[in-house]
Amino acid sequence: MVTKNQIKLVVSLKQKKYRSQHGLFVVEGEKLVKELLREGLRPFKIFVAIGHDFKGYAEVDQISTTDLKQMSSLKQPNGVLGVFHMTRARQFETSDWIVALDAVRDPGNLGTIIRLCDWFGIKQLVCSEDTVDCFNPKVLQATMGSIARVNILYTDLTDFIKKAGLPVFGAFMDGSSIYTQKMPERGVLVMGNEANGISKEMTDLVTERISIPQFGASTAESLNVATATAILLNEIRR
Amino acid sequence: MVTKNQIKLVVSLKQKKYRSQHGLFVVEGEKLVKELLREGLRPFKIFVAIGHDFKGYAEVDQISTTDLKQMSSLKQPNGVLGVFHMTRARQFETSDWIVALDAVRDPGNLGTIIRLCDWFGIKQLVCSEDTVDCFNPKVLQATMGSIARVNILYTDLTDFIKKAGLPVFGAFMDGSSIYTQKMPERGVLVMGNEANGISKEMTDLVTERISIPQFGASTAESLNVATATAILLNEIRR
Repeated sequence: MVTKNQIKLVVSLKQKKYRSQHGLFVVEGEKLVKELLREGLRPFKIFVAIGHDFKGYAEVDQISTTDLKQMSSLKQPNGVLGVFHMTRARQFETSDWIVALDAVRDPGNLGTIIRLCDWFGIKQLVCSEDTVDCFNPKVLQATMGSIARVNILYTDLTDFIKKAGLPVFGAFMDGSSIYTQKMPERGVLVMGNEANGISKEMTDLVTERISIPQFGASTAESLNVATATAILLNEIRR
Repeated sequence: MVTKNQIKLVVSLKQKKYRSQHGLFVVEGEKLVKELLREGLRPFKIFVAIGHDFKGYAEVDQISTTDLKQMSSLKQPNGVLGVFHMTRARQFETSDWIVALDAVRDPGNLGTIIRLCDWFGIKQLVCSEDTVDCFNPKVLQATMGSIARVNILYTDLTDFIKKAGLPVFGAFMDGSSIYTQKMPERGVLVMGNEANGISKEMTDLVTERISIPQFGASTAESLNVATATAILLNEIRR
């Protein structure tokens, strides 16, 4: 059973404003919901369409496919919709690498970057306040379960970096090649906005200008922010 | 001026069937159209909405924004729509690396991979016949101008690889680490489908099983095919 008010609440969670207000977010699909449960995230409600099997949690409500459709962000709802309590970012540690995102706007890019951090064991991701919200449904579909394993903080990025006291790496066309640059045990890797790159303010805080060598024609477009992050995290860990 | 038949033709080019039949494809946006012209691609027609400036080509037709809207794949058409003649794939050379895609289905992933090939100077991309069409509008928006600089062939992949006579690299969870594996001067790098990875048939042809080391929890999801390609091409070139 689902009440009209619950449907209204879940629909409202498509907007960041209401996610923040209620401290709740939505993920869809049995696999993803189960992964978040396994990672210890606290469910608020788990709505399961009739015909789908999902047992063992007090928060499960069987509902009709019509009701599910009303709440879902997907064209083809896939049977299970979980509403979870947000977790607050834990204290950051300066003993390992931190990835810092400066106004990354595309949900697919943020989702991919969270998944990359998880793969490369980067536990800490700090985002400028104008970076797309990590609880945006499109981000969550792209991160898969990684959202539960990476500690994500939204804050004033310049403030954060000034206080961190770590070397700050940023990719620029005129930076030194990552093939020769020595990567330290810890640091901050700043990745910039899709269209404008790293902002002026953040550029001033970068202590190590690096670059990914280009082998094609000089006319080749720059790399997408998510693929550049993949290459740089691989270089940091290798 | 644009005729009703021309509008019908351009709209039909959203489908692969008609693109193949006419040997034409569509790109949108002044920047992208100009880049393809600069790369020497042959325009069939360039439709330019009134108010936009685009000179120097016999194929330019000034049209109304209403007509442009009818032809565009974008929610917000951006003034310029170019129809280009397809180029046929040139002869492949076995003196450098070749990237082979085995049933990559997502247009964004293919677009990103084409852009990566361009960046890393990989001139040859061979695709299985069930890989998404590279002239799909969403692929073209993601590749930017790189589509003109990478030689792309759709063919029977197993046949192609058997004839190439090159070492064949494929990424598998149990492969040897790319940090220790020596990469030769030339070879084929096979990347698999988003959900199923490399097919059984292609797996049998892989001579070198490689893997990207994972540093996070063992529960971390696999990497997205485009980000894995980014890391592997970087390793090949570094």
